[in-house]
Amino acid sequence: MAEEKGLTPRAQDFSAWYNEVVLRAELADYSPVRGCMVIRPWGYAIWELMQGALDRMIKETGHQNAYFPLFIPLSFIEREREHVEGFAPELAIVTHAGGKELEEALVVRPTSETIIYAMFAKWVQSYRDLPLLYNQWGNVVRWELRTRLFLRTTEFLWQEGHTAHATEEEAEEETRRMLGVYRTFMEQWLAMPPLTGLKSDSEKFAGAKRTYACEALMQDNRALQAGTSHHLGQNFSRQFDLKFQTQEGREDYAWNTSWGATTRLVGALVMTHGDDAGIVVPPLLAPTQVIIVPIWKTDEQRAAVLGKAQEIAKALGTAARVKVDDRDFLTAGSKFYEWEAKGVPLRLEIGPKDLAKQQVMLVRRIVPDGAARKEALSETLAVQQIPERLSGIQRAMLAEATRRREANSHRGVRTFDQLREIVDGVGGFIYTGWCGSSVCETKVKEETKATIRVIPDAEFRSAEMPATCVVCGEPAATEVVWAKAY
Amino acid sequence: MAEEKGLTPRAQDFSAWYNEVVLRAELADYSPVRGCMVIRPWGYAIWELMQGALDRMIKETGHQNAYFPLFIPLSFIEREREHVEGFAPELAIVTHAGGKELEEALVVRPTSETIIYAMFAKWVQSYRDLPLLYNQWGNVVRWELRTRLFLRTTEFLWQEGHTAHATEEEAEEETRRMLGVYRTFMEQWLAMPPLTGLKSDSEKFAGAKRTYACEALMQDNRALQAGTSHHLGQNFSRQFDLKFQTQEGREDYAWNTSWGATTRLVGALVMTHGDDAGIVVPPLLAPTQVIIVPIWKTDEQRAAVLGKAQEIAKALGTAARVKVDDRDFLTAGSKFYEWEAKGVPLRLEIGPKDLAKQQVMLVRRIVPDGAARKEALSETLAVQQIPERLSGIQRAMLAEATRRREANSHRGVRTFDQLREIVDGVGGFIYTGWCGSSVCETKVKEETKATIRVIPDAEFRSAEMPATCVVCGEPAATEVVWAKAY
Repeated sequence: MAEEKGLTPRAQDFSAWYNEVVLRAELADYSPVRGCMVIRPWGYAIWELMQGALDRMIKETGHQNAYFPLFIPLSFIEREREHVEGFAPELAIVTHAGGKELEEALVVRPTSETIIYAMFAKWVQSYRDLPLLYNQWGNVVRWELRTRLFLRTTEFLWQEGHTAHATEEEAEEETRRMLGVYRTFMEQWLAMPPLTGLKSDSEKFAGAKRTYACEALMQDNRALQAGTSHHLGQNFSRQFDLKFQTQEGREDYAWNTSWGATTRLVGALVMTHGDDAGIVVPPLLAPTQVIIVPIWKTDEQRAAVLGKAQEIAKALGTAARVKVDDRDFLTAGSKFYEWEAKGVPLRLEIGPKDLAKQQVMLVRRIVPDGAARKEALSETLAVQQIPERLSGIQRAMLAEATRRREANSHRGVRTFDQLREIVDGVGGFIYTGWCGSSVCETKVKEETKATIRVIPDAEFRSAEMPATCVVCGEPAATEVVWAKAY
Repeated sequence: MAEEKGLTPRAQDFSAWYNEVVLRAELADYSPVRGCMVIRPWGYAIWELMQGALDRMIKETGHQNAYFPLFIPLSFIEREREHVEGFAPELAIVTHAGGKELEEALVVRPTSETIIYAMFAKWVQSYRDLPLLYNQWGNVVRWELRTRLFLRTTEFLWQEGHTAHATEEEAEEETRRMLGVYRTFMEQWLAMPPLTGLKSDSEKFAGAKRTYACEALMQDNRALQAGTSHHLGQNFSRQFDLKFQTQEGREDYAWNTSWGATTRLVGALVMTHGDDAGIVVPPLLAPTQVIIVPIWKTDEQRAAVLGKAQEIAKALGTAARVKVDDRDFLTAGSKFYEWEAKGVPLRLEIGPKDLAKQQVMLVRRIVPDGAARKEALSETLAVQQIPERLSGIQRAMLAEATRRREANSHRGVRTFDQLREIVDGVGGFIYTGWCGSSVCETKVKEETKATIRVIPDAEFRSAEMPATCVVCGEPAATEVVWAKAY
């Protein structure tokens, strides 16, 4: 067991707090391999619940899972010009295998567009073979200079969707659909409401025609790109000869999309909901939703309270993911501390006095408005009400995260000085006009480190479209949202 | 669509048949990367059903999933002498990353003992931290010279369990428990009854104290190692300093086990149940259990039969995984052919005549004893009886595979000439006595290519223990089972 020492408060050093809570909650640990992490059981169980939910949503929208090779011939990556420029500096390369030097070096996939579209080209002949709607769960490697647990690691886990369509319109529709799937998933499951929209050209995926993104606002008011959906146009299909015969008998290149979400989402969860006592897991993603801690002094008490704890766990059945912490060698206080750090939504304490009164003490990890942190409940009522308490907490967490995002969204910002003052000060999402020129975009980035997170989707746009570019003062082509980002 | 041409019959060329049915069923395809395959949606969906079932069984026996890095420092692999000797020739090595040559080369994991036990050493201090019961789903790479789709590929998917225990007895118990889990899984889900037992020293895992295995008999009477469970003793814990304080206050090295099952199981399924029309998938693992093929000539008929097909699919609800094949551009015959090749257990045909009689035509992919291949059933009865028909097929497939295994098990073989005649002739599992010497073992291997698959578990042993070694005629130390293997 790790020594119990206090965590750095968020307000003092958010970055130190993040690393400490991730380790304390046993979500992950550093490995002996530079930049690679180990995802420990508690972190992996959260990821599995995310995976399960997102996988169902991906299948419900008509996609099928498949698996493509980890290794990609270097020449494949080099075929799409922007793609190789974007990924070349981050590649890990296998040069030797089976005791010999390879004739052609193999890249450990940083993403799978090239190998997947090469296979699509083999399978597609006619418009009847389209659309192809594929998804892959797997690991990818990008050699990052500075790494952070979950947020930026050399190897990470993700799903990558890859589709091929007969028309540009259909590909665009698919790109938008999957952005919507990510948004719904983040709202409903992570209780994390992202801002959605289009990336500027300088921020789009290497090889894409257009990139859409979900951007979530962390508690330190920095943005985190939490999921992206790319319309790839015919860029890859031209390079990999992914052609098909149209209904009219012509030959055309297919239109591709790709979209991905990663284990980074576990980090997003931590920075969206965590507090100074540890992480807080939304009930839908909590591997254990209810931890029952029996409290005893004598052996006789131990038998009685443990028996009751098991009985209540059994009564809850499949209505909640429940666990009894029956470890003998820890005090009840240490157990409270551990499960709070791990973010379990509800704790039930059962001591000899509770037993006598046929009650349990229900303690909430986070306290929604109008609720109490602790309340005594009859055993029957506790069992009955736990599912509703859990969904109440899930709703409250989304409401609080949405409130926080809105409270930290700055609209009506007109001058570069104002923009700079917010970026250097409180941070958050800053809505301004933009002329569309990369010169203005670069100036902001260089002088403030803030970037255009997205050109926001309609529902996020300000009631009044900003008239001028926040940098040059020329007429604005569009509204954009700036923030410092992870 | 692939050209419809006949498959090579099993009896003519089993190996050609295997490759053809795997491709025809769209289980997998060759990739542009040597020895790596692409698992296509139909193959991956079967794998996902296997994963789901095995994952539940692994969790029910107290294990937790986690994720460890893809890359392992070369020096880690080299620490355990037998381990490195076993794996060195098969390693793929990353020498360059991020545009630079690495100071220490990284191995793409061929298996994860070394990195996992290095992490365990960090987490374990006392007997209270034991046992650690971990499992990982992921990809591994072993550079194979000759590859076969699913059976032997450079990259494959698998789960690898890794545990640490305070005592040798507990580790042995765990090793046996997981062998049992594999066996149950293969019997219940794959309808494939393996022979279980202990490997001889020459066939055990590189670095293990003891290896147990599930060996399944394919239709060509060659054995396939389908799952292994290793008792690693303290071999790795000594090298990675995985120590703990015992209850008595002493210091001791932990006892490890590891166990794995791979995508090879998809190949095992093909070679256990396939026939000259394609693969046959046991109902529990069939992504589509019931394919409904509506048959029509006129547009009016089309609307009516399609409507009925949808109605029946809806009536089946979640009682079966059902799909309506409503493709306009294929004949009903082409659809029959395609779904037979893919091994879907039940087909329902609905044509205008069936519609008039309120019946459907039920067609079985394989025909259990006493059943008919085709039968007309009223719509109501069809919906009611499909779940029972499916479980009947599952049972029949296990019974047939067990019958075949027994029919091809040769007991009472006493002389080397007899052994050689069977190996060179009909093949199968050959039970003999063995003196225990590696000289005799090697002689059989060199002269017949058969190897000791296992020293069989008690229930598989012959009623009468063979008295003498089949090679040297000296007293037998144990009974063994020989076969040529994949």
